[in-house]
Amino acid sequence: MTPSPTTSKFGLSPGTLVYVGPEVAKDTTLKLVEYNEKYHEERVVRNLRECRISGEKPYISWLDVDGIHESEVIEAVGQLHHVHPLLLEDIMNTRQKPKIEFYNDTYVFVSLKMLYWRDQEGQLDAEHVSFLLGSNYLISFQEKRTNDIFGPVLDRIKASVGKTRRNGADYLLFSLIDLMVDTYLEILERMSEELEELEGQILAGKHKDPITQLYNLKRQLTLMRKYVWPLRDMLSQGLRENSKLIGKSTFPYFRDVHDHVTNVIESIDSNRELLTGLIDIHYSTLSSRMNSVMKTLTIYSAVFMPLTFIAGIYGMNFNNMPELRQPNGYFYTLGGMGVLAIGLLIYFRRRGWM
Amino acid sequence: MTPSPTTSKFGLSPGTLVYVGPEVAKDTTLKLVEYNEKYHEERVVRNLRECRISGEKPYISWLDVDGIHESEVIEAVGQLHHVHPLLLEDIMNTRQKPKIEFYNDTYVFVSLKMLYWRDQEGQLDAEHVSFLLGSNYLISFQEKRTNDIFGPVLDRIKASVGKTRRNGADYLLFSLIDLMVDTYLEILERMSEELEELEGQILAGKHKDPITQLYNLKRQLTLMRKYVWPLRDMLSQGLRENSKLIGKSTFPYFRDVHDHVTNVIESIDSNRELLTGLIDIHYSTLSSRMNSVMKTLTIYSAVFMPLTFIAGIYGMNFNNMPELRQPNGYFYTLGGMGVLAIGLLIYFRRRGWM
Amino acid sequence: MTPSPTTSKFGLSPGTLVYVGPEVAKDTTLKLVEYNEKYHEERVVRNLRECRISGEKPYISWLDVDGIHESEVIEAVGQLHHVHPLLLEDIMNTRQKPKIEFYNDTYVFVSLKMLYWRDQEGQLDAEHVSFLLGSNYLISFQEKRTNDIFGPVLDRIKASVGKTRRNGADYLLFSLIDLMVDTYLEILERMSEELEELEGQILAGKHKDPITQLYNLKRQLTLMRKYVWPLRDMLSQGLRENSKLIGKSTFPYFRDVHDHVTNVIESIDSNRELLTGLIDIHYSTLSSRMNSVMKTLTIYSAVFMPLTFIAGIYGMNFNNMPELRQPNGYFYTLGGMGVLAIGLLIYFRRRGWM
Amino acid sequence: MTPSPTTSKFGLSPGTLVYVGPEVAKDTTLKLVEYNEKYHEERVVRNLRECRISGEKPYISWLDVDGIHESEVIEAVGQLHHVHPLLLEDIMNTRQKPKIEFYNDTYVFVSLKMLYWRDQEGQLDAEHVSFLLGSNYLISFQEKRTNDIFGPVLDRIKASVGKTRRNGADYLLFSLIDLMVDTYLEILERMSEELEELEGQILAGKHKDPITQLYNLKRQLTLMRKYVWPLRDMLSQGLRENSKLIGKSTFPYFRDVHDHVTNVIESIDSNRELLTGLIDIHYSTLSSRMNSVMKTLTIYSAVFMPLTFIAGIYGMNFNNMPELRQPNGYFYTLGGMGVLAIGLLIYFRRRGWM
Amino acid sequence: MTPSPTTSKFGLSPGTLVYVGPEVAKDTTLKLVEYNEKYHEERVVRNLRECRISGEKPYISWLDVDGIHESEVIEAVGQLHHVHPLLLEDIMNTRQKPKIEFYNDTYVFVSLKMLYWRDQEGQLDAEHVSFLLGSNYLISFQEKRTNDIFGPVLDRIKASVGKTRRNGADYLLFSLIDLMVDTYLEILERMSEELEELEGQILAGKHKDPITQLYNLKRQLTLMRKYVWPLRDMLSQGLRENSKLIGKSTFPYFRDVHDHVTNVIESIDSNRELLTGLIDIHYSTLSSRMNSVMKTLTIYSAVFMPLTFIAGIYGMNFNNMPELRQPNGYFYTLGGMGVLAIGLLIYFRRRGWM
Repeated sequence: MTPSPTTSKFGLSPGTLVYVGPEVAKDTTLKLVEYNEKYHEERVVRNLRECRISGEKPYISWLDVDGIHESEVIEAVGQLHHVHPLLLEDIMNTRQKPKIEFYNDTYVFVSLKMLYWRDQEGQLDAEHVSFLLGSNYLISFQEKRTNDIFGPVLDRIKASVGKTRRNGADYLLFSLIDLMVDTYLEILERMSEELEELEGQILAGKHKDPITQLYNLKRQLTLMRKYVWPLRDMLSQGLRENSKLIGKSTFPYFRDVHDHVTNVIESIDSNRELLTGLIDIHYSTLSSRMNSVMKTLTIYSAVFMPLTFIAGIYGMNFNNMPELRQPNGYFYTLGGMGVLAIGLLIYFRRRGWM
Repeated sequence: MTPSPTTSKFGLSPGTLVYVGPEVAKDTTLKLVEYNEKYHEERVVRNLRECRISGEKPYISWLDVDGIHESEVIEAVGQLHHVHPLLLEDIMNTRQKPKIEFYNDTYVFVSLKMLYWRDQEGQLDAEHVSFLLGSNYLISFQEKRTNDIFGPVLDRIKASVGKTRRNGADYLLFSLIDLMVDTYLEILERMSEELEELEGQILAGKHKDPITQLYNLKRQLTLMRKYVWPLRDMLSQGLRENSKLIGKSTFPYFRDVHDHVTNVIESIDSNRELLTGLIDIHYSTLSSRMNSVMKTLTIYSAVFMPLTFIAGIYGMNFNNMPELRQPNGYFYTLGGMGVLAIGLLIYFRRRGWM
Repeated sequence: MTPSPTTSKFGLSPGTLVYVGPEVAKDTTLKLVEYNEKYHEERVVRNLRECRISGEKPYISWLDVDGIHESEVIEAVGQLHHVHPLLLEDIMNTRQKPKIEFYNDTYVFVSLKMLYWRDQEGQLDAEHVSFLLGSNYLISFQEKRTNDIFGPVLDRIKASVGKTRRNGADYLLFSLIDLMVDTYLEILERMSEELEELEGQILAGKHKDPITQLYNLKRQLTLMRKYVWPLRDMLSQGLRENSKLIGKSTFPYFRDVHDHVTNVIESIDSNRELLTGLIDIHYSTLSSRMNSVMKTLTIYSAVFMPLTFIAGIYGMNFNNMPELRQPNGYFYTLGGMGVLAIGLLIYFRRRGWM
Repeated sequence: MTPSPTTSKFGLSPGTLVYVGPEVAKDTTLKLVEYNEKYHEERVVRNLRECRISGEKPYISWLDVDGIHESEVIEAVGQLHHVHPLLLEDIMNTRQKPKIEFYNDTYVFVSLKMLYWRDQEGQLDAEHVSFLLGSNYLISFQEKRTNDIFGPVLDRIKASVGKTRRNGADYLLFSLIDLMVDTYLEILERMSEELEELEGQILAGKHKDPITQLYNLKRQLTLMRKYVWPLRDMLSQGLRENSKLIGKSTFPYFRDVHDHVTNVIESIDSNRELLTGLIDIHYSTLSSRMNSVMKTLTIYSAVFMPLTFIAGIYGMNFNNMPELRQPNGYFYTLGGMGVLAIGLLIYFRRRGWM
Repeated sequence: MTPSPTTSKFGLSPGTLVYVGPEVAKDTTLKLVEYNEKYHEERVVRNLRECRISGEKPYISWLDVDGIHESEVIEAVGQLHHVHPLLLEDIMNTRQKPKIEFYNDTYVFVSLKMLYWRDQEGQLDAEHVSFLLGSNYLISFQEKRTNDIFGPVLDRIKASVGKTRRNGADYLLFSLIDLMVDTYLEILERMSEELEELEGQILAGKHKDPITQLYNLKRQLTLMRKYVWPLRDMLSQGLRENSKLIGKSTFPYFRDVHDHVTNVIESIDSNRELLTGLIDIHYSTLSSRMNSVMKTLTIYSAVFMPLTFIAGIYGMNFNNMPELRQPNGYFYTLGGMGVLAIGLLIYFRRRGWM
């Protein structure tokens, strides 16, 4: 089920900027990071006009827009960099599915999802992230709801660790996407752990009603697949398209992320298959329990019905019932009942019901 | 199930104009809208000859034909604009599925469905809509059954809001299609809400017989998919085909609608998957309820059958039954029965049946 | 299941002409129709040599061979028009599936199925129909079993109604195929009606054993799909192949039939999906009925077992049973039983079993 | 399940000739047939050197190797005709799936399966058959286990019936493949008959446990599909590949076999679908029988439990039970019981349980 | 479920070498084999600098790196041969799925899985294997966990058996892949045997709870499919790509392995289908057993309930019960009960319940 939006877009002129997503209280924060192999500066942008970054500077500029719910901010950033209004709409629409778009050699638009796993609720949470890759700069847009998700890459730039400082804006884009795909793998592992636990309980027959839980997990996996699936095509398209903005030397890196995404999708699919298998096992368990309940009932009835009937016979009040006057009639009857009961039990054991 | 038509077409010569669809009482209304950036006029057409619009005028002409059940009207409009008789047949056939057809650079034919969601019946209602896009004009055909569905666009033109007034007939076509796709999204949301409500009830085990409702929802989703599915291909084809009638500047807009349609289809598919999951949960609930009913029965039987049997034994009328003469025989028996009952209950609790 | 043939073809040299199909008593009838815009003649052919028609005449010649069970007739017609022996085999083999084959620009071979719906048996009946389209002539082959299926087109030619008289042999072929596809739509409607009736009964829970009927309908739909499915490819192939025999002006007509066939296939598929849904509903109904039966049983047992047990206790014959001597013991016991019964009923109502 | 082989090939150098298949006692027989339109000779080859046949003779040479379990024989034949060792491996490996391979214009390798239907066991038996088609000769390899499967073609050559004598080695290959595909159709018909019988029994509810039989049939169909499926691709590939060894004049014949194979595959698929349907019907029958059993039980219990309870009440031994002293108490009670029983039966009939 | 890794890679700079896989205690062993048709030497490498092999020597060099858990070793080997850091990452990542990558004509990277079948646990064990094929050398990487898996090929080289000594490094690569694919076939056979055993037990109704076992087998098959599936594409890609490193003369061999892999995949798929069938049979068995249990219960109840009721009637204590005073009342009653019981049994036998 798609989450219900805060605002509807029905009837509005296309390209009208409206934020579609959960309500957010905080203000937008803009952070500008400039770096090359030798130089590094990081500052918070307070005046929107400062945001104007161009590819002509001798360093990489990375503008991180934290918050996509204020249409004036997005519009201002967009106008400063000549972004198509429909793209701005996509940046603000948290329901937009992942996509890549090439605007000649001016910029590349990339939009994907940061995922979080809420352990308590057993639910996936998605944050809408967009990138604009220019010739020497990168603008990133993220929702304000959580902490800055790009922290690890920022730290690596600051500490001048790894290859980021030595490479272009395309490598920066790759690093950020790689970071997000890494979280996908982690989420999958947490889901796998939950699944394995459930599996153990179901196979041991300990879990009474695992269907709701299995169903929820399946739904989260489906949701995740929906978010991750388009990424594969996006990345192949990014490699196919002969854009000057993505250098040939970063190709092996994008191919690597592509591999990881394929891994994620395959793991999702095999987990879903596993879930289906577990549901089957659960039903089978239900069925055989039912069988065993019914057998118990039937054996009880089969043994006690004839006995009670015999007792009923000798409880009749006919005047003339010769057996009643026999001194040992009672004991013979009890003995006969015992023999009958044992005979029936042997019969049911032979039929494999006990 | 395809709805039963009012009139059958069997044995008729192909190209014979016959209205196929639910009966309609009202007359056809023709409305002509002419506009460019500065000029705007709107009038109801009473004489069919007035309908003749051409692309040579310095403004966009939009002829809206409200009502497709009168073959003379459709035929007249068609002849005035040299439309192929088979196309006129498609315009009048409400069962025609969405399609796009290019007639060189003379006109483009587009046919799709306006959808309504009837909340009370929980049913989808489709209205057949067709467009003829010429070089500087657009002719739209809609069923007379509901109100004018193009109201919001008309209002925008009148108020000179948005980009419609500044763009060509192709942008007008886009606006109208966009409007209709927006209603698809709204309908999906209403369906999702109903589904979520159902889901809540089923997971809480409150809904006694959700199958009929789930089944109806699934059917409506299948129906919707059937209407929306061809749109995706239509739009890609419209972008691929190199027609002069659709300008390059409206391409991003059509690509945008294409994205929305893809979203609609994916939402439909994930909702259908969800429905299947809910049906499974419902069955599982039924099964475990059955299990619990059977366990109750079995425990009752298992406890009372032996007790009743014992009571039956001491109700026998044998002359010689020593226990009966014991002063405390009755109380010992009662005690024994109590012990047996408690023992059995402990046993069933240990087996996890209680 | 493929129907069992009257004659087996095993071990025969390929290309040997053997009629494969249900036995037919009647003789083959050959009818020759010649027409152009001004001229029209129709006669029954008695001498096989008269059958020789060529494309050089100033009118369209249509030879209709009614009956495909006499190998001499088929062979003679084939030899007169230089038809490949394997094609003649296909004409006589009623199990041949629909196909189109282009023999350069000499002739086009088309084979498809006329379908009938036998209402009483609820079964589809297929008749094998083949066409040979030459440059100015058409030869049609049909089974003798039913009436002439091409009547309506013949009537239109006679009455000079519609476009047939004004167009070539390719338009005639189109008219005949169109006629057959129209019957497909009609059959589907009759199936849909039966389905809707069944659906009503199942949803109302009135139909006791709908599975056999649903299963038969599904089988007929599968059969129909098998017959209709290849038509779509055939028609696209006919449009793709650049044969001189099919004129560009008839292309829109063939595209129209192609659309209809696609409609038929989609309706078949959605009906099949519907059937699957109905089967699910039926099972669900069975399950909940079972549940309600079991609950009834359990409530009965749960109420009467304890009561009967109490009655059994006071039916015991112990000498010393103080309650029995109490003047109002009987009435107290009856009262206690009533209280117990009511208590149990309240309990079960609270658990939602009643 | 793949059948367990007599010998394992693990760790052997690739291209080592080892027979993989069921053990065979008999010796290999080699038969050489030479023919053209006027000449025909057939002899058993005793000296392996005689086997050397070439395409330069004025007649077609057909060497039939009956037995593929002796590696020396296969190796000798292979060396005489310069066959790649991997191909010889394929000839001897009965588990090799059908394939076609073109070795330039020297020879074409074709391998497929002869199928037998063992009626008693209801099982499919496959024999591995390979062909080497040279420019004017054909070498065929078959397993020794059954009789010569190429008898009918041999007889036709001997009797100079049909077109084989008048055509090349490619037509001979076609005739042999055609013969094998004909047996596929026959086997399918026998399976269809068995299915139809089963269907009749299941629909009539007469067959107690059809699952095992249905399951076996499904398995045999799956097996058959596995053998037949690659043939379709093989034949299209044979037509696509522009080998000089397969003449254009035999193309229609190969296309014809291709059609037959497609028919076989479709029949297999529709039979499999039918089987799935029958399994559903069987389950439904089981369910409704269960329902009817449960209803019987419930009605019995619902009627007799209250009656037995009433009898139990008047079997109590209270001193003061006024009803017992009523002269007609017994008869009134019996009457009341009858009224109660009839009332309950009417109630259950109204609920539709009887 | 993907196995949980020893170390997580989250947040690390891409290309950082970290071993991902189960912990391994042993050291890495490096073995260098040099051979041509006449020469053969094999030695353990102790100094990493000795590892440097080049394609300019007059013999094939094969460096086998046994152990991939020490990043320094892998890095050193990689730097000596100018391997891309991302490839080294893939070599050390045991979760990397099979792939092939061409680095111009410098080297080909191949990575696949060696599989083991653990009989006791019924589980598949995978070992990560990678190859670097240069112009005249091959470097192989395997996990240290098991014995050297390339033994048989090493022995063949030593003994100068087969074609390996006479061919290039590409043939050596083929031999090693072929060896691994052979183990796949063996594993499948062992799985098939287990399946056949299970099948026998299920069809005989002897196995009480086969679901867990079937489920595990299915999971192992799914896992195996995941490992084997990419191989097919890899091999076709290897044949398509026009690399100088893989000679045309080894093409038939690679095509042969491709065929085997296809066989493996098809066997996996048919085994999975079989498993699904067995699960169905198991459920059907459960259902019919349930049916038979319920019938037994119902027959018991239907017979004994009326009898016990009759006995209850004559156990009532009414003063005036004329039957009780009849001298033969008791015997008549017993007789009537017998007749009733026999009548009911006949009735149930007629309904087919016994």
